[in-house]
Parts: sequence; C-alpha cells; structure tokens
Amino acid sequence: MSKEIHARLDALRAQMRQKGVSAAIVPQADPHMSEYLSQHWQARRWLSGFTGSAGDLLVTLDEALLWTDSRYFLQAGQQLEGTEIRLMKDGLPETPSMVEWLTSNLKSGETVGVNAMVFSTATFADLKGALSRYGIGLNSDFDVLDEIWRERPALPDGKVFVHDVQFAGVKASDKISLVLKNVRKQLADSVFISALDEIAWVLNIRSNDVRYNPVVTSFLYISGEGSTLFVDAAKITPEVANYLKGEGVSLAPYASVKSFLAALPESSKVLIESARNSAGIAEVLGERAVKGQSAIAMLKACKNDVQLAGTRAAMLRDGVAMVKSLCEVQSRVAAGERLTEMCVAEILRHYRSQGEYYFDESFGTIAGYEGHGAIVHYEADEASNATIEPKGLLLIDSGAQYLDGTTDITRTIAMSAEPTAEEKRDFTLVMKGHIALGSMIFPEGTAGSQLDAIARQYLWKEGLSYLHGTGHGVGHFLNVHEGPQSIRLNYVPAPLTPGMITSNEPGLYREGVHGIRCENLVLTVDAMTTEFGKFYKFETLTLCPFERSLFDLGIMTNEEIAWVNAYHAQVREALQPLLEGEPLQWLIKNTEPLPLH
Amino acid sequence: MSKEIHARLDALRAQMRQKGVSAAIVPQADPHMSEYLSQHWQARRWLSGFTGSAGDLLVTLDEALLWTDSRYFLQAGQQLEGTEIRLMKDGLPETPSMVEWLTSNLKSGETVGVNAMVFSTATFADLKGALSRYGIGLNSDFDVLDEIWRERPALPDGKVFVHDVQFAGVKASDKISLVLKNVRKQLADSVFISALDEIAWVLNIRSNDVRYNPVVTSFLYISGEGSTLFVDAAKITPEVANYLKGEGVSLAPYASVKSFLAALPESSKVLIESARNSAGIAEVLGERAVKGQSAIAMLKACKNDVQLAGTRAAMLRDGVAMVKSLCEVQSRVAAGERLTEMCVAEILRHYRSQGEYYFDESFGTIAGYEGHGAIVHYEADEASNATIEPKGLLLIDSGAQYLDGTTDITRTIAMSAEPTAEEKRDFTLVMKGHIALGSMIFPEGTAGSQLDAIARQYLWKEGLSYLHGTGHGVGHFLNVHEGPQSIRLNYVPAPLTPGMITSNEPGLYREGVHGIRCENLVLTVDAMTTEFGKFYKFETLTLCPFERSLFDLGIMTNEEIAWVNAYHAQVREALQPLLEGEPLQWLIKNTEPLPLH
Repeated sequence: MSKEIHARLDALRAQMRQKGVSAAIVPQADPHMSEYLSQHWQARRWLSGFTGSAGDLLVTLDEALLWTDSRYFLQAGQQLEGTEIRLMKDGLPETPSMVEWLTSNLKSGETVGVNAMVFSTATFADLKGALSRYGIGLNSDFDVLDEIWRERPALPDGKVFVHDVQFAGVKASDKISLVLKNVRKQLADSVFISALDEIAWVLNIRSNDVRYNPVVTSFLYISGEGSTLFVDAAKITPEVANYLKGEGVSLAPYASVKSFLAALPESSKVLIESARNSAGIAEVLGERAVKGQSAIAMLKACKNDVQLAGTRAAMLRDGVAMVKSLCEVQSRVAAGERLTEMCVAEILRHYRSQGEYYFDESFGTIAGYEGHGAIVHYEADEASNATIEPKGLLLIDSGAQYLDGTTDITRTIAMSAEPTAEEKRDFTLVMKGHIALGSMIFPEGTAGSQLDAIARQYLWKEGLSYLHGTGHGVGHFLNVHEGPQSIRLNYVPAPLTPGMITSNEPGLYREGVHGIRCENLVLTVDAMTTEFGKFYKFETLTLCPFERSLFDLGIMTNEEIAWVNAYHAQVREALQPLLEGEPLQWLIKNTEPLPLH
Repeated sequence: MSKEIHARLDALRAQMRQKGVSAAIVPQADPHMSEYLSQHWQARRWLSGFTGSAGDLLVTLDEALLWTDSRYFLQAGQQLEGTEIRLMKDGLPETPSMVEWLTSNLKSGETVGVNAMVFSTATFADLKGALSRYGIGLNSDFDVLDEIWRERPALPDGKVFVHDVQFAGVKASDKISLVLKNVRKQLADSVFISALDEIAWVLNIRSNDVRYNPVVTSFLYISGEGSTLFVDAAKITPEVANYLKGEGVSLAPYASVKSFLAALPESSKVLIESARNSAGIAEVLGERAVKGQSAIAMLKACKNDVQLAGTRAAMLRDGVAMVKSLCEVQSRVAAGERLTEMCVAEILRHYRSQGEYYFDESFGTIAGYEGHGAIVHYEADEASNATIEPKGLLLIDSGAQYLDGTTDITRTIAMSAEPTAEEKRDFTLVMKGHIALGSMIFPEGTAGSQLDAIARQYLWKEGLSYLHGTGHGVGHFLNVHEGPQSIRLNYVPAPLTPGMITSNEPGLYREGVHGIRCENLVLTVDAMTTEFGKFYKFETLTLCPFERSLFDLGIMTNEEIAWVNAYHAQVREALQPLLEGEPLQWLIKNTEPLPLH
C-alpha cells in the first residue's frame, strides 16, 4: 500500500508543478458539505490510505501531512505507517493548525492550491485571509483528481424515486412556496441549495446515492420563476421527470451548475447558507450571494402530522424488532451459544426487515461488547468481531429507514444475570442524565446547547464525562443525523421547536472495560403557557425497555424511578399486542415496575 | 422638553442637509464600546430625551425613530411623548429592524451618515452590507455633535492614579510582556486596545471617569518597541507620567489616536478585538488589522493570588456591612419606623464606607420593595421612593469598589415575621437554582452558557423564568461587569477558568408583586483530575446569610438543605469575630441550621 500511496502523491505533485502550486490541500469533503461521502469524493482516503471520517491532507512538493482528531490518532498512525505522510495530531497544544503550518513553512509569493468546491466558505475565508497576510497566493480552482485518479468511482447513478405524499404529508410545490417565503424574508429573491437532504426533502425525492442516507446527488435552484434540479440524466426515469415537471421543477446536468450560476443576472439576490454550500459556489455567485439562514432546515426539522403519525407507526415496528432481537441475543448467549457482534447486527437487520415499509438500515449497526463498547464509532468487522459471553455489557446502537420514518435507538444490555456494582453504577449515572434531560420543561427559544449539561451533571459530579453530543436531529426517511437543532456543548443556535425529533443519548466509556449509551428519540411538544411565555417538553417516541437489571436504585430518587416505571408501562402497553411467546415474556419481565424507596 | 428636542433634531438635520446625508444614526455607545457612558458620549440621550441605557436613534430629514427593547417600552413611551420621535419596539414581530427600515424607506443613491467611532465593527459591517445591496451609500465620518451640541460636556478630566502593585499583584511591565505573548500567538506584532477596563488593568491605573467604573478614558497601543497611552494631558500628574515611563509607556493626546494609527507602516500587524473596538478604528487600520481574540481579557479575568487575597479580605468587610445594614433595616421597620428604599441605599453606603480601602459603590444600589423589586433595573428616586412596611419582600442588590477588590451581592429579605406561602415558594425555587449552579462540578473548557439552564430548571418546571443572565464576570477594583466569561443562555464561548470571579444570581419577578434575586460571587477552583480530565467547581466568596425564614423546606431535598446549612456555618464562622451587639445576634439567628427531613 505504501508504494501506491507514494505513486499517487507523486502524480499529484506533477500536477502541482505544472500549475505552479507549492502546496495542495485535500479535505474530507464533497461539494454538498455532506457528513457521509460517496466513493467519488473519497479523494483524501485514496491519496493517503487513511480511512477515518475526519482528517485533511496537505501535500507540498517534498512533504505530506495529515491532520486528524484524537478519535483517529491510533488508526491514522497505523494506516499511515510506511508512507511518507506525517500525522499531525489536531487539538494537541504542540500541533500547529494547517494554516499556521502553511504560513510558517511557505514563502511569500508561493501558491496554495485547493478545489473551492469541496471547501466550506468559513474554512476557505480563514485560509485566504491568513495566506494573504503572508503574501501567499491561493489557487481556488486546483481540481486535478480526474487527471491523477484513473479508477476514480463515477458519481452515484442510482435511480431517483418519489417519496409519496402519503408519507411526506406536503406536496413539493407547496414546500417550494414555503421556502420562497423564507427566502423573501431574508431579502433575497431565490435560493441555491447544495445540501442533499434539503433537496430530497423539498422535492419529495429519494435515491440510494449514499449508504444509509437516501439522498439524490444534485444541486437545486429555486426562484419565483421556477426551480432547476441539477442532476445526472441517467438517474431520472421519465416518470420522475414528469413528476418534477408537475411540481414546477426543470432539469439540468449536474456538471452545469457553475455555468448556470455564473450566467445569472448581476442583480440577482441568491440566498445561500454558508455552512452548507461550498466556497466554490459562493465564489461563482460573488455579489449575488445573500449569505443567510437555510430557508429549509427549520421547515424540514419540524415534522408535520402525517410525518409524525408515520414515525409513531414506524416506532411500533422498530420496538417489536428490538424486543425480538434483544430477547434472542440474551437467551441464545445465556444458553451457551457463541454469538458474535456481527451476529447481533444480523439479527437486528433480520427482524427489522420484516417490518412494513422497511427500506434500509439508517446507519451501520454498532454492537460493541465489553471494551468494544467504549470505542464510540465502533463497527465490528471480520478482524475485530468479538464473541459474546454471559458476562459484561453489550452496547447496541442501530436504526432503520422506513418509508414512513427513520429510527435510531441505543440500548446497553447486561449479558450476565448478575451485573457488577460498577456496571450498575455507571449505567445508572448515564440514565439519571437521560431522565433529567427527558423530563426537562423549557421556554420557547431554548437551544439544545443550553440543555446539554442537564444530561451530564451526574457524571461530572463523579469526574466522569463523554465526548460526543447528547442529541442530534433525526430526519423523516432521510439522514439519521440532521440539523438545525442539536443537543451538544458546542454552540448550535437553532431552538428546540414543536415537531422536531431529536435523540437523547448520554453515555459513558471506560477504555478496555465497557461502553454505555442510552438513547431514545424524543419529540418537542407544548407543555404549558404562562405569564412567562410558552414552555415546551419532550415526548418519548422510542418504544423499547431499558435493561431493568442495571438500575442501581440506591443512587436514584423516587422521581427518577417513577419516570422509568411510567416509560416501561407505556412501552408494555404499546408493544404487548404485537408480540407473543418468548419475546412477549421478555417484554413483560423487562417492564415490571422498579420498587420505590 | 419637546420643544428643545425639536430644536436639537432640526440642528442635526441642518448638518445632514449640508453634508448630503438622508438619515443619521445616533447609537447609545462610545468609542470604547463601554457599558456605562460618560456624559460626553450621551448624544442619543441629549437628542431624544430618552434616558434608558439601551436604544438607538435614527433621524431622517422628516422622521425620527427610536429603537429600544422591552425593558424600556414604558419609560421610552413616556419620555418621547410630545416629541416627534416614534418608538420602535425592538423584538416584537411587527417591528422592522433599523436596517430593514432603512433599506425599505431610503432610495438607491441616498446616503446614511454615522460616526464609525461609536459603532461596533459587527453592527457597522451588517449595516454597510445591507445598504450596499440596495445601492444606499454610507458616510462613516458623519461626526457633527460638536457643531450642534453647544453645552456638550467635555471628556472626563479626573486625575489618574496608580493602583499599587500591593493590590494588583503584578507590575504593568510584566503584564505588558504577557499581553505581547498573546499577541504573537495570534500572528500579530502589536495590539490596539479601546476597552477602558483592559487599559486600566494592564497599566495598573485608575481614575473616576465613569461613575462606579474606576477607568481612565484613553486608548492604548502596545508593541515590542514600546507602548503609547492616548490620554488627555490634564489627567496625568508628573508622578503618574513618571510611573508610566518606568513601565515603558509613553503618552500621546487622546485625540491623536487616529492619525497615529494611520501613520503605522503598511506592514504592521495590529491585533484588535472586533467586539471591543469601534468600526472607526478598524477602518483606519485597514489591512493592518488582525481581527482576533482580546489579548487581555483572559489574563484580567483570572485573578492572581494577591488579587484573591484582597478580594477575600474585602468580602469580610462587605459581609460585615451587609449584616449591619440588613439587621438595621429589619429591626427599624419592625419597630414601626417609616424607612424608604432610598434610606436603605444610604444605610448600605454608610456601613460600607466605614470599611478599610473603601473607594465607591460598584453600581447604583437597587433596593426594590414589593412590586419595585420586579423592575429588574430599578433604582429608587425621589418620585418612586417607596416606604417599606412590615410585610412583603425587599430586594437589595448592591456592591462596593474597595482598593483590594470589587463586591456585588443581592439578598431578598422578608419584612414580615411570617412570609406568605407564595413568597417562600418563589424564593425557594430561585434558591434551588442558585444551589444547583453553585454545586456544579464541570470539566475544563466548560463555558457559562452551558451551565445557565442548571440554575433555571426548577423555575422552568413551574412555567416560571427570568430574562436576565445568571452570572457575569466581576473585575478587581474595576468594572463590576466584566468578560470574557458569562453565565447566560446566550452563547459566550469563554471557558470558566480557575481564578475567575463570577456572580451566581438567578431571580424571579412577578410584576406588581415582588422580585426575588439571590446573588453570591463565586470563584472557579480545581475540583479533581480523573482519566476524563480536569474538573472545576465554584468556591463561594460572598459572606452574608440568605433570609432563613423564606426557605420552603417542603420542596427542598436534604442535599439542598445541607448546602444552605454549610454555607451559613461558613458565614457565621467568618463574620462572628467581626460583629457585636444586635448585628451579632442577627447573624447567629439567621445562620441557625435548617432542619433536615
């Protein structure tokens, strides 16, 4: 592999020399600022051999450096071994940022090459500003991958299909009208959208371009005079073309997007959301760009009644599949079978796929046994696949795409009938945070970042913590991670608004020992209105018991125990009619009330 | 008054016509982005007659509008009555922002006039961008106040004095070295400072330019080659000039600052913090400006051991004064005396001024009886001054500037021996939040905005809330409100760091009934270090009992009761040796332990 990497870097350097570029940046990104990239955009992976989901590569004529964060220090170190690429450990005090490295290693008059189409506008602006202060040039159109990457995968070519209004609840043309209202509020007359989930939502279309995310690789321009979808013709059947025409949407080639934007009248006022459009798009729009809020994100996040009814129905199916799966895993392991982590993922897929409207998983199942549970982004493969024994904890994070809703649930279950005191204490500290967040009442306008500490307070008191966010938005038959709301320590201003579906998933990870995460999806709903304004609360949508044997009642208040009992009563009532035999017995046993003090 | 206002607006309009300006903006601001303005900068107040601390005036050739927020709707409505100025209620959905109003009422080709020296860079950039999209010009040098304001107060001319290193702990020249380190980290070679509290801190100088804030009206330029303080010569005694020279600081006239900056070499890299420098400064620096973080704010916020020892000593004196004052107020009212709110402020001033190192109050005392307590920025005057009866609640928020530290404390006391159930419940809900925040343990890097909801959660559960922040940074013989940290719902990224002094002051305000606020100052200190990193907690600095008769034990946990008892034991131990007679008896009675369940 290291020889191939060397040859690839050399090919890149030949292009750099030809174009007068002293340093090239290859980020982990696509022109849609996506979380998951299709193979076509995995250039950083191809050039470096490093497969992590975060990390940017910098190549100069005689050096190569890869910046990645602490999650990937170990993996990157292994994967870069034998190559000339130096690992730059992002976040450590001694590591300069890429910009610092460039300004102190390049000379005035040299040029940095990037493809602005895969740079966020903010990163690009920071880079440009710093370089210009040091007299270093920036070539924003350095796009040489097609030249050097012979076997570069094509853009995804799966067929587009219509997400029926029986599931979506609102017609595309009506959504377009709502979007245009938001556009005009921001003093623009049209909007350009690069974000794939926003395009899929507004047009009620889906495809299978990116595993787990049923999006369509495309750009969308919406104006009062009509809308244009930039998409490869091969992806569009005559029926879909006809459907889009009926909704006022015409088609143009994916590759024509820049020339289309460049040809817009100088007086155009095109709204773009900086964070979800590339610097390349902002550049071509120039003065025509009105940088503002997404005209779609809040509309998409606040589910309508049809979507909510669908989601509730999907939750019943998902709960049934979860109970059958957890029951099967626990009883087979207890019976002495040598089940592996990959078997667990297979069992879940099996039961979920029996449900109505099942389309796919919503992400790769994480089934992490004991120490594997402590690796936050763990996904078992042939090499790591652990065998589960009748002891310790098993963390299972999984979900599904149903045509009527998307699910995401994490349960941490005990593989022994007698969990240890430490297992119970760790689990209960996590659950106390889950319950505190789930029971919050908060005023209109409250953002998730204002609530995150509520879920962490009991862990913090013991000097414990977890490094991921507590909750993310969830799409409707769309990305399992969606904005604009997010419950995390980092600042995310979007207010938690009725109709939003968000995860509640605090955790605790002890390296080499176990990982614990407890996740339900919750819906923001009205709580009350007083002289102090409107107040909201969370309604739990997910239907599956928490591991009853892991609660340490000694560190719980009666209010917390009552919360668990009420939730378990709700789960039992909902799922009981849909189960029979062993899974039904498992449900009954696992939803028995816990004793109050 | 309305006639005078009319004449003043007319004079402004004459200048506008002469300079080709269609609309002039007069904000509530000075060139130092100060919270409190000296009289010289009260142009908005002089032009409009509105005396509130927030609000911007817009004057066109035939209209005049004043935008202010909900705190001031009532007051502004009264004060603008009879003038031609229209009140624009900021924050209501039907109220356009000033920028929206301008873009929809001015025509392309017209010009807006502002003095960029009293505009924050962010506000100015927003304004400039929006106007340019509509073809409206911007004259950033429209500074006509000296022409139209005949009796304009001069700049403050009080003498500057040195804040001795026995109090400050670190010499100015050593602080300058630390600041320059921060400057170089941000890839700049010098720094320009407009913020008055930052200048006072770094040079260890003080004056009485702004009531309550012992700052020096000046600008400061620091570079490796030396520092220049821009200040009126009349303010500087030979001793102070000599002192500054010894610390490597030369003097220049206050008014010469723009020409000095304009003459810096083109290659200069001058760090400025956008939020605390005006757009006028940024404009004159042009490409020489490196916009970054304050090089001073974190250094100033994290108090050194000398400052902390001074603050602890000041807290003892302040606690003694508080106990004597509260004891006197309660006993005189109980004895049937007709005490007023203004008497309460006078009693506090009297006892505080007996303390060693007393300099001034740190802000105007808020003594709000019953309904007045619900007016968050209430300060009694001859017209409002209420007489306190032996019933209801009295809110007292006050503080002092001592040479060795700044205090700020709020206590809400009962004027009856038998508070009502509602009074006790409201008070206890506020205290539950105060206790929850005060007992937090949180990891390194946690910002105040991540903790604010901890203090609000019990109120929110009952549909109650308060609209102010929960905590602000406090200076050391400097501004009682200082950054960079802040405990509030709004995003403020500065992490709570050991050495920072912050207030903990949740509240509850029932219009026309009573206001409750419970405020201690707390110091961020180490709590523990685990495999999950460093954790911090708060140590309470303020020494004064909370009103014991207002605790509703029925809604408190044993942990909360124990917190109150532990705090009261600490207060008793600290203050007991310093009191005698009736105040000592009052202290003993008010620090008796509350019974546990």
